[in-house]
Amino acid sequence: MYRSHTNGELRIENINNEVTLAGWIQKTRELGAMTFADLRDRYGITQLVFGEELLQVAKELGREDVVQVKGKVIERESKNKKIPTGEIEIEVTELTVLNKSKTPPFTIEDETDGGEELRMQYRYLDLRRKPLQDALKLRHRLSIEVRKYLDSIDFFEIETPYLIKSTPEGARDFVVPSRMNPTQFYALPQSPQTFKQLLMVSGYDRYYQIVRCFRDEDLRADRQPEFTQIDCEMAFVDQEDVLNTFEGMVTHLFKTVKNIELTDFPRMDYAQAMEQYGSDKPDIRFGMTFNYINEVAQNKGFQIFDDAESVIAIVAEDCSTYTRKELDKLVDFVKRPQVGAKGLIYAKYNEDGTFKSSVDKFYNQDDLKAWADKCGAKPGDLILVLSGDKATTQNQMNTLRLHLGDELGLRNPNEYAPLWVYDFPLLEWDEDTARYHAMHHPFTSPKKEDMHLLDTKPGEVRANAYDLVLNGTEIGGGSIRIHDKETQALMFKHLGFTEEEAKAQFGFLMNAFEYGAPPHGGIALGFDRLCALFGGQETIRDFIAFPKNNSGRDVMIDSPSAISDEQLDELNIDIKAVEAQ
Amino acid sequence: MYRSHTNGELRIENINNEVTLAGWIQKTRELGAMTFADLRDRYGITQLVFGEELLQVAKELGREDVVQVKGKVIERESKNKKIPTGEIEIEVTELTVLNKSKTPPFTIEDETDGGEELRMQYRYLDLRRKPLQDALKLRHRLSIEVRKYLDSIDFFEIETPYLIKSTPEGARDFVVPSRMNPTQFYALPQSPQTFKQLLMVSGYDRYYQIVRCFRDEDLRADRQPEFTQIDCEMAFVDQEDVLNTFEGMVTHLFKTVKNIELTDFPRMDYAQAMEQYGSDKPDIRFGMTFNYINEVAQNKGFQIFDDAESVIAIVAEDCSTYTRKELDKLVDFVKRPQVGAKGLIYAKYNEDGTFKSSVDKFYNQDDLKAWADKCGAKPGDLILVLSGDKATTQNQMNTLRLHLGDELGLRNPNEYAPLWVYDFPLLEWDEDTARYHAMHHPFTSPKKEDMHLLDTKPGEVRANAYDLVLNGTEIGGGSIRIHDKETQALMFKHLGFTEEEAKAQFGFLMNAFEYGAPPHGGIALGFDRLCALFGGQETIRDFIAFPKNNSGRDVMIDSPSAISDEQLDELNIDIKAVEAQ
Repeated sequence: MYRSHTNGELRIENINNEVTLAGWIQKTRELGAMTFADLRDRYGITQLVFGEELLQVAKELGREDVVQVKGKVIERESKNKKIPTGEIEIEVTELTVLNKSKTPPFTIEDETDGGEELRMQYRYLDLRRKPLQDALKLRHRLSIEVRKYLDSIDFFEIETPYLIKSTPEGARDFVVPSRMNPTQFYALPQSPQTFKQLLMVSGYDRYYQIVRCFRDEDLRADRQPEFTQIDCEMAFVDQEDVLNTFEGMVTHLFKTVKNIELTDFPRMDYAQAMEQYGSDKPDIRFGMTFNYINEVAQNKGFQIFDDAESVIAIVAEDCSTYTRKELDKLVDFVKRPQVGAKGLIYAKYNEDGTFKSSVDKFYNQDDLKAWADKCGAKPGDLILVLSGDKATTQNQMNTLRLHLGDELGLRNPNEYAPLWVYDFPLLEWDEDTARYHAMHHPFTSPKKEDMHLLDTKPGEVRANAYDLVLNGTEIGGGSIRIHDKETQALMFKHLGFTEEEAKAQFGFLMNAFEYGAPPHGGIALGFDRLCALFGGQETIRDFIAFPKNNSGRDVMIDSPSAISDEQLDELNIDIKAVEAQ
Repeated sequence: MYRSHTNGELRIENINNEVTLAGWIQKTRELGAMTFADLRDRYGITQLVFGEELLQVAKELGREDVVQVKGKVIERESKNKKIPTGEIEIEVTELTVLNKSKTPPFTIEDETDGGEELRMQYRYLDLRRKPLQDALKLRHRLSIEVRKYLDSIDFFEIETPYLIKSTPEGARDFVVPSRMNPTQFYALPQSPQTFKQLLMVSGYDRYYQIVRCFRDEDLRADRQPEFTQIDCEMAFVDQEDVLNTFEGMVTHLFKTVKNIELTDFPRMDYAQAMEQYGSDKPDIRFGMTFNYINEVAQNKGFQIFDDAESVIAIVAEDCSTYTRKELDKLVDFVKRPQVGAKGLIYAKYNEDGTFKSSVDKFYNQDDLKAWADKCGAKPGDLILVLSGDKATTQNQMNTLRLHLGDELGLRNPNEYAPLWVYDFPLLEWDEDTARYHAMHHPFTSPKKEDMHLLDTKPGEVRANAYDLVLNGTEIGGGSIRIHDKETQALMFKHLGFTEEEAKAQFGFLMNAFEYGAPPHGGIALGFDRLCALFGGQETIRDFIAFPKNNSGRDVMIDSPSAISDEQLDELNIDIKAVEAQ
């Protein structure tokens, strides 16, 4: 035993105890004939005080040296109320330097002076900082509570294989050449989807797994090639059962991990979400929902509105005092290529009941009053209007709404507003391949009442699919699955699979459906994202111990890297000559 | 909701309840105007009874059909005391067939009629059988309890990456070509060893992970290319701390999962294990330890013993009555090529105090009495002797001892005898490469007091390494690690790494050691094997939901498989022309 206590443990009650501590030197300071040092470990910080006999060695201590000290717990003269050990210090009688440290390339403090690149390269030092330790501790705590909850309601955690079969549907697979089966490859799973469905066929009834998934995508910001999913499946359930179960899980997590009681867990269908928020993952922490004002805004001579499919207005409460400059900034915002609007119309509803708009030439006070009435605006509010074809305008207005929510401080990271969005479209049209793709995945069941549209209006068929949204971020999605061979075959046909392709890729699943597959459905939640949201952070990177950069590289271990010719030979593969890059 | 209750839930108290059940038809039988059916799910079996109005549909029910029934709980006339629901049955008023099943290719019974190949191909059906459901349930339960215990003593579960870097030390890596970094590869981890050590450098103090590991080995029986490990690491510990911690974990698992109190957790050093059992993983459920009888057996004119380095005897208690035939079978056993002994000498110590041996020509009664005294044998016992060079003879005698243990019923699968074996050699000589290899891995620390032998007698240097043995099976192993750059560099040198190679492969770890690495150590337990032992089974296969066969194939999903030319192009690799096989 290198220590009798951790550095977060000693209190005023321990005074006069003889103790042994170990940890890292956070900092030292000299005060007359005394030297003080802060000793740090995962559990906290304890102050050390060295008297004259140890002064020389103590003076040589550097940041991040690993030491062991023996000594007596004494009461501190100047107490530090900010830390739990702040009332005591250790009068050191024996000091052993267990391992010297070179001076770290950046400071191990909450706010460090190290840049992103450097911190990634020395990830093992960055991970010493408290914000990262807190993040990984939170992650651990969440995983424990997820398991506790699911175990308590009879879910089994069942491990599914990581070396599986490549399927072209979805994102790109990472593949693994098989040495024992030359010319053949395994693939790493994008999710355990088919396996969890087979487990339902096998009668496991309730399955979950906190599981790594892999996608070889060009990495967008804050995407990782490997990520973790809370993967779940249930048999003999309909959509309502799944929603209730995971509403329970999220409520449990908030209660146990953050001591927050979620009281409201609203549900909204996809059509309504798009109509009111222009998004399938609306942030409902604030209102500012869409108003379609075609009726009152068209046919007044303003060509842009007259030509538009939709004229959409939102109301920024108490913002009629926005200055010209502030309004111009909003106009600039929507004109950025990422948003792509041609312009932004505003109408101030002044406190005195008058209106001032950017289109006063076309709309008199009564006209603008009609806008306000249509939108439910009141004096003091600001009405903002975009127009154009419906889908595009909804999308642009969604971006503007979220931007304003940020600007106006309506998106409090410590407020949590979950939402179920359901009745997603089954299929979505893909311009590139000029065919329909499964919006969720090919195993999602269509709504029975929409089946008749599958041949004639495939885009209108709704699925038994649902997303769990938290503060405008999708944290999970799932569906009630197809569980009979005929529907599954029909689905593959509509997705452009030939019978042979479907059989080669998913024959095992369709066969399984012939041997008594129960109705089943499930959900998968993005665990990295969930952790970040619980931690009140925007990015997932600090909630992953060893993340990769945007080129999929681990710069600390320098991976990926070349492998030996012997390895290539054994695997029966060659590297193609790479053109000069 | 497809059901109001599961099939394991209803009791005599529920009589007259109107219920809805769902599940699989286990079997049906007709009895006059009534048809009975057993309805099965994960939770149990409930008997259904169909009256006249449903007779026709009930008759058409086949094995493994998925149905939903509504009806009333009634008391059974002939109760089945063997199952918890055996006092009631359901008088069915409504029957819905949710999914018809084809006749399964084998019966879904505890003892099935399906062969290994067929069951692997239809794994999803094999997984319906109770022994497999019990196995996966046990696995789930063990994983829950492992986490509960480690969480309770401040371990954090931290996920480490699966896409890492290929290292030539150890077994073969599975590799993953990187599309974004052409010509480069990731490797799948053989274990998270370096990452968990970095987490100690980062100050996480106590880490664990139930984690998948990958080894591209030629599969021996009961090995899988992917397997699961309980991986743990602790900082500021010595060997004693690690042993106590995981003794606690194993004790907790036995208590909570099997309701067995482990009272004894002995420790034995490697030298003693080899000397007494000829094995570094002795099964100590029974005695029959080795006796070295050179002193009393040599120089009596029996050339074979006289020429031997070691003459080793074991005592089979109360076996002096073994017949000629039984003794011949033992001789045949040790002569099998897998054992490789030239012969086996016996001496019966008859109840009347006389001796009868296969070498009576060389040893008189007094001589044999001296053997017996040396071995602590008593009248009625059988003494069995092997001889030759020490290591070979120990190995052969170990095999014979375990065989006899089986024969004599001394290896009760429901008795559990854990054991720590420690002080393993640091290095072992590899004939093929004519150099020393790390017996555990290159990060294991040598014992300080043996360091001086590193240059002169490397084979005699002991390591701070330990194995956890249960009933003669190694279920885990670990060590106190090297935590300073100099020792690690020295170790790599002794393993035949050049400085450049060491830096290219493990530079990040050696760098990390320069920034304040604490003393640390850990252990990894084979989770698949642990589950099998807890389940009282010899093979791990049924404790893995979707195992691969001995060629590394998943015959159910037919993987590995060919991938498309587009995928190969994107990954920048070619398949070599494979010679006719």
